[in-house]
Amino acid sequence: MKNTFGNNVTVTLFGESHGEAIGAVLDGMAPGIKVDMQLLDRMMELRKPAGKISTARREADSVKIVSGVHNGMTTGTPITIIIENHDTRSSDYESMELVPRPGHADYTAELKYHGFQDKRGGGHFSGRITAPIVAAGAIAMQALNSKDIYIGTHISELGANKDRDFEDYKEDIISLYDKPFAVLDNSAAIPMKHYIELVASEGDSVGGILKTAIIGHPGGLGEPWFDSVESMLSHALFSIPAVKGVAFGDGFGLASMRGSEANDSFRISNGRVITTTNHNGGINGGITNGMPIEFSTVIKPTPSIYKQQDSVDVKSMKDTVLSIEGRHDPAIIHRARIVVDAMTALTMCDILVTRYGTDFLA
Amino acid sequence: MKNTFGNNVTVTLFGESHGEAIGAVLDGMAPGIKVDMQLLDRMMELRKPAGKISTARREADSVKIVSGVHNGMTTGTPITIIIENHDTRSSDYESMELVPRPGHADYTAELKYHGFQDKRGGGHFSGRITAPIVAAGAIAMQALNSKDIYIGTHISELGANKDRDFEDYKEDIISLYDKPFAVLDNSAAIPMKHYIELVASEGDSVGGILKTAIIGHPGGLGEPWFDSVESMLSHALFSIPAVKGVAFGDGFGLASMRGSEANDSFRISNGRVITTTNHNGGINGGITNGMPIEFSTVIKPTPSIYKQQDSVDVKSMKDTVLSIEGRHDPAIIHRARIVVDAMTALTMCDILVTRYGTDFLA
Amino acid sequence: MKNTFGNNVTVTLFGESHGEAIGAVLDGMAPGIKVDMQLLDRMMELRKPAGKISTARREADSVKIVSGVHNGMTTGTPITIIIENHDTRSSDYESMELVPRPGHADYTAELKYHGFQDKRGGGHFSGRITAPIVAAGAIAMQALNSKDIYIGTHISELGANKDRDFEDYKEDIISLYDKPFAVLDNSAAIPMKHYIELVASEGDSVGGILKTAIIGHPGGLGEPWFDSVESMLSHALFSIPAVKGVAFGDGFGLASMRGSEANDSFRISNGRVITTTNHNGGINGGITNGMPIEFSTVIKPTPSIYKQQDSVDVKSMKDTVLSIEGRHDPAIIHRARIVVDAMTALTMCDILVTRYGTDFLA
Amino acid sequence: MKNTFGNNVTVTLFGESHGEAIGAVLDGMAPGIKVDMQLLDRMMELRKPAGKISTARREADSVKIVSGVHNGMTTGTPITIIIENHDTRSSDYESMELVPRPGHADYTAELKYHGFQDKRGGGHFSGRITAPIVAAGAIAMQALNSKDIYIGTHISELGANKDRDFEDYKEDIISLYDKPFAVLDNSAAIPMKHYIELVASEGDSVGGILKTAIIGHPGGLGEPWFDSVESMLSHALFSIPAVKGVAFGDGFGLASMRGSEANDSFRISNGRVITTTNHNGGINGGITNGMPIEFSTVIKPTPSIYKQQDSVDVKSMKDTVLSIEGRHDPAIIHRARIVVDAMTALTMCDILVTRYGTDFLA
Repeated sequence: MKNTFGNNVTVTLFGESHGEAIGAVLDGMAPGIKVDMQLLDRMMELRKPAGKISTARREADSVKIVSGVHNGMTTGTPITIIIENHDTRSSDYESMELVPRPGHADYTAELKYHGFQDKRGGGHFSGRITAPIVAAGAIAMQALNSKDIYIGTHISELGANKDRDFEDYKEDIISLYDKPFAVLDNSAAIPMKHYIELVASEGDSVGGILKTAIIGHPGGLGEPWFDSVESMLSHALFSIPAVKGVAFGDGFGLASMRGSEANDSFRISNGRVITTTNHNGGINGGITNGMPIEFSTVIKPTPSIYKQQDSVDVKSMKDTVLSIEGRHDPAIIHRARIVVDAMTALTMCDILVTRYGTDFLA
Repeated sequence: MKNTFGNNVTVTLFGESHGEAIGAVLDGMAPGIKVDMQLLDRMMELRKPAGKISTARREADSVKIVSGVHNGMTTGTPITIIIENHDTRSSDYESMELVPRPGHADYTAELKYHGFQDKRGGGHFSGRITAPIVAAGAIAMQALNSKDIYIGTHISELGANKDRDFEDYKEDIISLYDKPFAVLDNSAAIPMKHYIELVASEGDSVGGILKTAIIGHPGGLGEPWFDSVESMLSHALFSIPAVKGVAFGDGFGLASMRGSEANDSFRISNGRVITTTNHNGGINGGITNGMPIEFSTVIKPTPSIYKQQDSVDVKSMKDTVLSIEGRHDPAIIHRARIVVDAMTALTMCDILVTRYGTDFLA
Repeated sequence: MKNTFGNNVTVTLFGESHGEAIGAVLDGMAPGIKVDMQLLDRMMELRKPAGKISTARREADSVKIVSGVHNGMTTGTPITIIIENHDTRSSDYESMELVPRPGHADYTAELKYHGFQDKRGGGHFSGRITAPIVAAGAIAMQALNSKDIYIGTHISELGANKDRDFEDYKEDIISLYDKPFAVLDNSAAIPMKHYIELVASEGDSVGGILKTAIIGHPGGLGEPWFDSVESMLSHALFSIPAVKGVAFGDGFGLASMRGSEANDSFRISNGRVITTTNHNGGINGGITNGMPIEFSTVIKPTPSIYKQQDSVDVKSMKDTVLSIEGRHDPAIIHRARIVVDAMTALTMCDILVTRYGTDFLA
Repeated sequence: MKNTFGNNVTVTLFGESHGEAIGAVLDGMAPGIKVDMQLLDRMMELRKPAGKISTARREADSVKIVSGVHNGMTTGTPITIIIENHDTRSSDYESMELVPRPGHADYTAELKYHGFQDKRGGGHFSGRITAPIVAAGAIAMQALNSKDIYIGTHISELGANKDRDFEDYKEDIISLYDKPFAVLDNSAAIPMKHYIELVASEGDSVGGILKTAIIGHPGGLGEPWFDSVESMLSHALFSIPAVKGVAFGDGFGLASMRGSEANDSFRISNGRVITTTNHNGGINGGITNGMPIEFSTVIKPTPSIYKQQDSVDVKSMKDTVLSIEGRHDPAIIHRARIVVDAMTALTMCDILVTRYGTDFLA
């Protein structure tokens, strides 16, 4: 379905980086969900570039909701989010018209759209389209929070620097809500930021690994086979530009473990079935077991770098070199984490509504 | 869509491990595709358990195609694959009725199906359901091969043992077609098998990492955002039991690389645009760039182990221990690789037909 | 989705008239629904040809459920229905290989499948494929009945003969369950059957109008715009071969009414909101209002007639005439009505499960 | 999928009558389709109310395309249409808050949205949402016209007045493009308009029957069973408020015909296979046969009438009467015909792109 995702709660994306507006249509949310624009703006704020470790492009990103919310509550009909584009400098991209940026979608967009795509600023492939995802996700997140379901993502690895793992899940997740640079161990932020600045000073960029936890959801969600929770979440997560890997529980670490180590034993605790470990990330056979859902997402280094790179002129079909001008992020991982939260919230709403019906989130 | 996947080429799965039959409906394949049952059976053979490194359950897995193929050619209408179950010993599973196996779907199935699920042999969650996936995938693979598109998967890591990477892609892929234990460097098979036997002798199990390459497809396939090639493939791959991670190109390794290392430079070669490296796995912005699509899949250790494990009695809600009887695989990675090939082939057919129309694969 | 229909309860059809088997996969039904094979067979019986007013082809149509039902109850996983073909005489169809039957899908199948379709007996276009629809619908119907939701269809018009309208809905609907020739006023059956026999004796065929009522469902079902109850039902109903029109409430009769006549006034009755008339067929704005859902379906005259007809030879591209041999129905309306019931039951299950979640029908 | 329709070309609707804006996202259109805003505005003009036979509410309905069109051409990415609301008088609707209008969605919206719906002006159920459908359809129509595919709808019946049938299809269809009151025989317009004025003067309203023809499309489009051309078109058409019946070819008239009359004989004409009649409306077995696709749509009388009607107070649950104030259409059939054209164009694009791939419409 191209720019629409979800079975019962769907999100449809639209817009180009330097077009008139970008946005999203969020459909299938129950009527009567409170939409707090301050909470929404706070989530939007976490996606914005800031300081030396981000692009110099500054957009107000003021979110207009033009349908589906009335008197501060969802109506049950499609919620439309519009964000106008203002701070665009299309001239920055002119040199790229014919010389695709390595690691970017410039060349593949040309193959797919035969030159008709809006090339300015990456067009529809721009990371800017994640802004409406975050806005839609913020509404989904409010619905989940009202059901005591919480989602949080932190920067687990950046260069050689690591953050600690989740410990007290709820407290840790809530602590992330106010952190523009999301680490659980605050002292981990300093070397990470230094590393980004160092790499930026060399005209280069850096990626990293995000870890996400979901808590408070019931067991028994998801489906065997094609609508497994892992399938649904990975489908959504791989839509985010720069995501090149998704792994649940111990993920690729499971390759070197034995069954006796990887299996999560069951125990009774306070009258409920729990597992004593969570190597499977809260999902067995595609279905939630009631433990936290945990997954890792790898964010590749931002492809837009100032270092000169080899490329080709697709018109003359000759080798050339490319030096990128303009305003670019040396790292996006600290901005991407809220996009991961948003995509996760949207997907969880879909999974819950499929399971419990259209009124569940009300 | 639960047990149906795909936009224009779809596969619908059904069946329980110890029920009457398992199978699949493959819809959307063009009319006039040659279906060679010998090639299909050869692919089925690669999924079968064999020797000391597999379960002792032996099924003929004889594939009956009851619709959609006439005179050895696809008709264009739904292709239905039926595999009857014969070698079932349901008594092996009786003890598991109330005590879920750690790492398995027993407990989550209970949460979802409230006791009505067919528990015998894992029921609908059984790895046996991958047999019709392979049969459907074998038809998809034949269609792709006739268009000079090839897919191959090898065991890249198993315990501490590694296989070499793809070098001559086409030759390497074709060499895998006849290998029951799929490694590119044949000498890598010996320590891997020894390791499986060792672990099996301890009543334990092992997982590993599979690497897959797709070649011969055009650039410009896939969509930005939700139907990215990565989203579509990961959705399908995470449906396979035991898959807990999927990563494209250098995957999680991209976390420690810089943009200048991770970007794949463009060059002109023989009048075509190529990239000199393939860290992005042949996909930029969700769309193929014409280079090989490459991804890794982690297979967790088989959860059915003979070692005694902690579990609970879900009826009395008390802690207990579980010792599994029956016939189980100490490793499934060598069998899973053809399931990955099959899922990949099915997904690629869907992506191609979406792009080029319903007759493309004819 | 070609041969799959539904959002949350889906049915996938497969098979060819003279192939090995036909069938359906019904997915999304809750676990724990009782499946009474006697009730299912009774519904199958109503679809079977019988007497002088039907084809002489006699199939046992014995339904095998090979997955998704265990111990007489649904498991929650896909329910697969298989009906083997036995009484096939493919030679009857040989002359039709190149000369398409007017009013049939022979010619359009050729355009779509380029000669690869299984032409014997109409192949995948055969009315025989409605047998698995009825089997799947019988399971859906049992689930609905257990929720006090009832569906019934009668022959409203056949030639110049008319049946009376629904009066006591529940009693009328239940009375139809045992009638092979479904009329509310039993005396209406005699002239209708005579008319079919008369037309048959002239080597011709006849159609008619079916009327359907659904009762016992709640108000508030369906969606505005694209998933309106009318959109969903019509989508399913137009899949049935021979259906050429679907109309809700007073249907085409609304064209000559005024707003003051067509509007259904609201009144309070026994503490509930009702409408005093039902010109809108129980649906306003695409959503159920709690009154009976009522619609009409027109069944065109069976295209297979013995009278000689003009056609063409598609190989030589010359005009020719066609005389059909074989065994054909002079009317199918009395058999089609249970197919309409089945499609309606399947669609209503989908609409209910979308609204109330996957466990609703349990 | 609620507010999204289509498999490969999709349209997503949003907005409320008295909200900030209404609109649509049109996805899956090929890159490089010329978008002529003058043609689009002309189609929008045909939907607008005008003169004594329409509501007095006048909206500029100026269409803003905020994404997916660049330099007058489609880019291949989602096309977003925004129409702001200006001429709203919400006070007109205040009295309706608790007393639902008969024939309207007021009561069913209450059942579904529990009072959270935006009730002003019918909210999301308002006929105003058809404005973005027409805008999206205008783009689809331009793509089809460039492929020599044409669609036209005329008022076939209104009260006792009838228009003539299509004769020279192409000429007739093109003649309709400039007619605000779409009849083929211009003299038919006068009694129809008089009748509307008469009914309006009595505070009442009127419906009628629309007939549509599609020409220039290839044979072999559509699918057997669930994605039949009839299923797809009816699904879309029944989404239009006031449509209560859809019938193909001779539709309900087929009920009184015999097979020998209803079957369309094949003949060779100018080296092509044609049918000598078109009782089946250009579709056999769900698939186009190359003849014009023809269907009828019944439009019920507008439910908003000035005559006093019986209704209930849903708060006090007591019977009451309702007198509607405000500005309402005594007939919408002359405005609805362009909505039918638009829905048809969108659906035909979807069917063509599914068949021939994403670039077909370029």
